[in-house]
Amino acid sequence: MANFHYNPHISVDCVIFGFDDERINILLIKRKQEGKNIYALPGDLVRKGEDLDHAATRVLFELTNLQNLYLEQFKTFGSPDRINDPLDIEWVNSIREHPEVRVITIAYNSLVKVEDVEFAPASFAEEVLWHPIDKPQKLAFDHNDIANTGWAMLREKIKREPLIAFSLLPEKFTLRQLQTLYEAIVGSSLDKRNFRKRMLRNKFLVALEEKQSGVSHKPAQYFKFDEAIYKEDFAKDQWFLF
Amino acid sequence: MANFHYNPHISVDCVIFGFDDERINILLIKRKQEGKNIYALPGDLVRKGEDLDHAATRVLFELTNLQNLYLEQFKTFGSPDRINDPLDIEWVNSIREHPEVRVITIAYNSLVKVEDVEFAPASFAEEVLWHPIDKPQKLAFDHNDIANTGWAMLREKIKREPLIAFSLLPEKFTLRQLQTLYEAIVGSSLDKRNFRKRMLRNKFLVALEEKQSGVSHKPAQYFKFDEAIYKEDFAKDQWFLF
Repeated sequence: MANFHYNPHISVDCVIFGFDDERINILLIKRKQEGKNIYALPGDLVRKGEDLDHAATRVLFELTNLQNLYLEQFKTFGSPDRINDPLDIEWVNSIREHPEVRVITIAYNSLVKVEDVEFAPASFAEEVLWHPIDKPQKLAFDHNDIANTGWAMLREKIKREPLIAFSLLPEKFTLRQLQTLYEAIVGSSLDKRNFRKRMLRNKFLVALEEKQSGVSHKPAQYFKFDEAIYKEDFAKDQWFLF
Repeated sequence: MANFHYNPHISVDCVIFGFDDERINILLIKRKQEGKNIYALPGDLVRKGEDLDHAATRVLFELTNLQNLYLEQFKTFGSPDRINDPLDIEWVNSIREHPEVRVITIAYNSLVKVEDVEFAPASFAEEVLWHPIDKPQKLAFDHNDIANTGWAMLREKIKREPLIAFSLLPEKFTLRQLQTLYEAIVGSSLDKRNFRKRMLRNKFLVALEEKQSGVSHKPAQYFKFDEAIYKEDFAKDQWFLF
């Protein structure tokens, strides 16, 4: 029986997306190795007796000082050859007691406002930075695969639960701000007239009396997101949408 | 560092749903213990150097002799107190060399036609059976949680990708058969007129010239599912469905 299996290390990796009012960024950590900058997702080994969600919360908190964020497990990556780049192998050899042991990692998605984050020094990161998702960047290990999968799954999730995206906007917002957010998520520009027409069909988008002030252009109307209407209207069973 | 973490066992568990032309069932394995029947999801430890998807495919194949099925990882369960029922503890003590070691399990969903499955004797199961999902059944470990999560996620998935559900129907089917499948998935009966009206809006549902023959009632028309139209029509970006 002992031949049949063996015990790998278990880690969590966090794919943390941040909206900066213009585009979506991903939080990366940087390590310096042989004069090169190597970028990776933040993560850490799961501790003895530690719950998986707790481990992810801990990594996120250590880096950002934020708690109670949207944080959701999306996939576990456990290919036996996850570590195959010579630089990654060298790095693992330098930090692990048993570098030959396979590492299976449970990946989590998170979504934050960039302005809410104050980077904190974390035990597992030399430097922390925001990187725009539309700018390609080679990452360590299989972290490109993890980040791409996380982004695809978060987009799917936002389609079904737009509530998550609305948390990135201020309490009152203009349709222009909403469109910018959507364009950042979709990754391309949208037709303004069409966007407004379709958006305004949603009853959970409530127009406020208040308009912008102190702007040189025609002041835009503010809207708010009504969670009660959303829950009643949108979250009902949509079996027949197709 | 060695104090900070330790290495758990890794397993896969499979939540296999089967449609029998009437309702949805879940595949369970039975163990006899102290004169009681204990039911559990099929699963096994991941072997050394084995890919996670491969381990799940192996479990499914050993039980059903089927390959190339829909099989998708949906969540990893790793609470430190996953094993707390005295009967489960006793059972683990009897089969594991190191029963004190925590087990983290990666759960997979699968969906099959009951008629396609021939149960095979598997190393990890005494008896295999289909159990209707609408009939409550206490399962071992945290398997009720795993099964419920799997079912909720599969339903979500079918909403977005109805293609998965159509694979449970014969090549040509009547609207009555389609409605029965939908009712089994939704878990309640649907209004016939409404169902037909909404379903027929989907262009990927193509009416055939052929009708039922040899039936005592008015013969129903056959339909087929057109994958090309579906892919063109449905699978496009649905950002503005809401």
